[in-house]
Amino acid sequence: MRVVVPFAVESPKTRLSPVLADRERRSFARAMLADVLRAIVAAGYEPTVLATAPIDLEADFDLTVSDEVREATTIEVDDRSLTEAVNARLPAGEAGKDDGTTDDAVGVVMADLALTTADALERLFSGDADVAIAPGRGGGTNALAVRHPEFRVDYHGASYLDHREIAADSGLTVETVDSFRLATDIDEPDDLVEVLIHGTEHAPTRLRSFGFELEERDGRVTVARSAD
Amino acid sequence: MRVVVPFAVESPKTRLSPVLADRERRSFARAMLADVLRAIVAAGYEPTVLATAPIDLEADFDLTVSDEVREATTIEVDDRSLTEAVNARLPAGEAGKDDGTTDDAVGVVMADLALTTADALERLFSGDADVAIAPGRGGGTNALAVRHPEFRVDYHGASYLDHREIAADSGLTVETVDSFRLATDIDEPDDLVEVLIHGTEHAPTRLRSFGFELEERDGRVTVARSAD
Repeated sequence: MRVVVPFAVESPKTRLSPVLADRERRSFARAMLADVLRAIVAAGYEPTVLATAPIDLEADFDLTVSDEVREATTIEVDDRSLTEAVNARLPAGEAGKDDGTTDDAVGVVMADLALTTADALERLFSGDADVAIAPGRGGGTNALAVRHPEFRVDYHGASYLDHREIAADSGLTVETVDSFRLATDIDEPDDLVEVLIHGTEHAPTRLRSFGFELEERDGRVTVARSAD
Repeated sequence: MRVVVPFAVESPKTRLSPVLADRERRSFARAMLADVLRAIVAAGYEPTVLATAPIDLEADFDLTVSDEVREATTIEVDDRSLTEAVNARLPAGEAGKDDGTTDDAVGVVMADLALTTADALERLFSGDADVAIAPGRGGGTNALAVRHPEFRVDYHGASYLDHREIAADSGLTVETVDSFRLATDIDEPDDLVEVLIHGTEHAPTRLRSFGFELEERDGRVTVARSAD
């Protein structure tokens, strides 16, 4: 299985702007990407980052990944839309076998799935449906495993329902993967609490370095940022 | 495994009051409870509802459950706090075996897990750790399997982290169950979109009968309520 990770290099995570400055958002986005790559490598795959502009993961933001992750990861620059860039990497028709499936399976994992673990990815990648989908909150598609050359993505709008429909229209089998870790993309200030509770390495460390910590208020848990 | 489902009969789901009237909230809460009970029965267990006041599931709100669910379900009235009512049902010390574990395992499933399926519950109930926890968003504890008589719950605040600590303090093993369906308790208006996308039976039907439907706005999916 080839595994691709689309990554928006410029002005990422704009919905976090109420709580993180521009440079912090860029730093945090790379920390999340590093955690996603680490989980993919731990699951035994070699990820390709589809970056919208040239990046050096470890430059500029004082981020250090392990030798294993550095060596396993390839970065390709592709400034097309998310949908176009991903479709260009999905299984090719000519690689199809007699039964219509393909050995050239492709995993697509979003770069902001900061809670991702190798176990969660294994559940996504180890099935045998033509398409496996890990839905995100609000009907998004957070991660995919595509094993059939007829499937194409369309990330606009309610992509989870759209992707089910696209698969059904081609008579493909679909599996929905029930994972809280894969369902939790980190988009909004409320999501940061999940990073501090369930995050794996770089992302929670970076948030703490920015002064964020868990806080209990009215019996519920949220994040607070220290003043200094 | 005994499975208990705590249920607040009076004024449930107050955080849904911006979008649902009092009677609608009570109706919707029962629909979610019915879906949770159905999943528990489909997984092969006989649920006990811990109700804060006497209820008849099918009276008053035009809700019809299957014969199988009706016959498998027991309702016990317990007006103590959630923590006290659940602790009173956890495995008893005297039932412990030589290795400290107990055959008298207990599952605790919240009544607002409208996306629950038998598969998700099986993953929670089939492990062998002393305590298995399905965390909710924001550090809550949405579902538990307790297999050791020394464990006790405390639902106040960040209960997921507290429950891990309570288990660790007694030297118990803990498993975290990675399930989007079990992580999604339906508390707030934003959660209703998940019921319409991933709900199983009564809860999505009831929301649609109230006029709710999915709506795409600015490339994101939300719910809208028709005027009539």
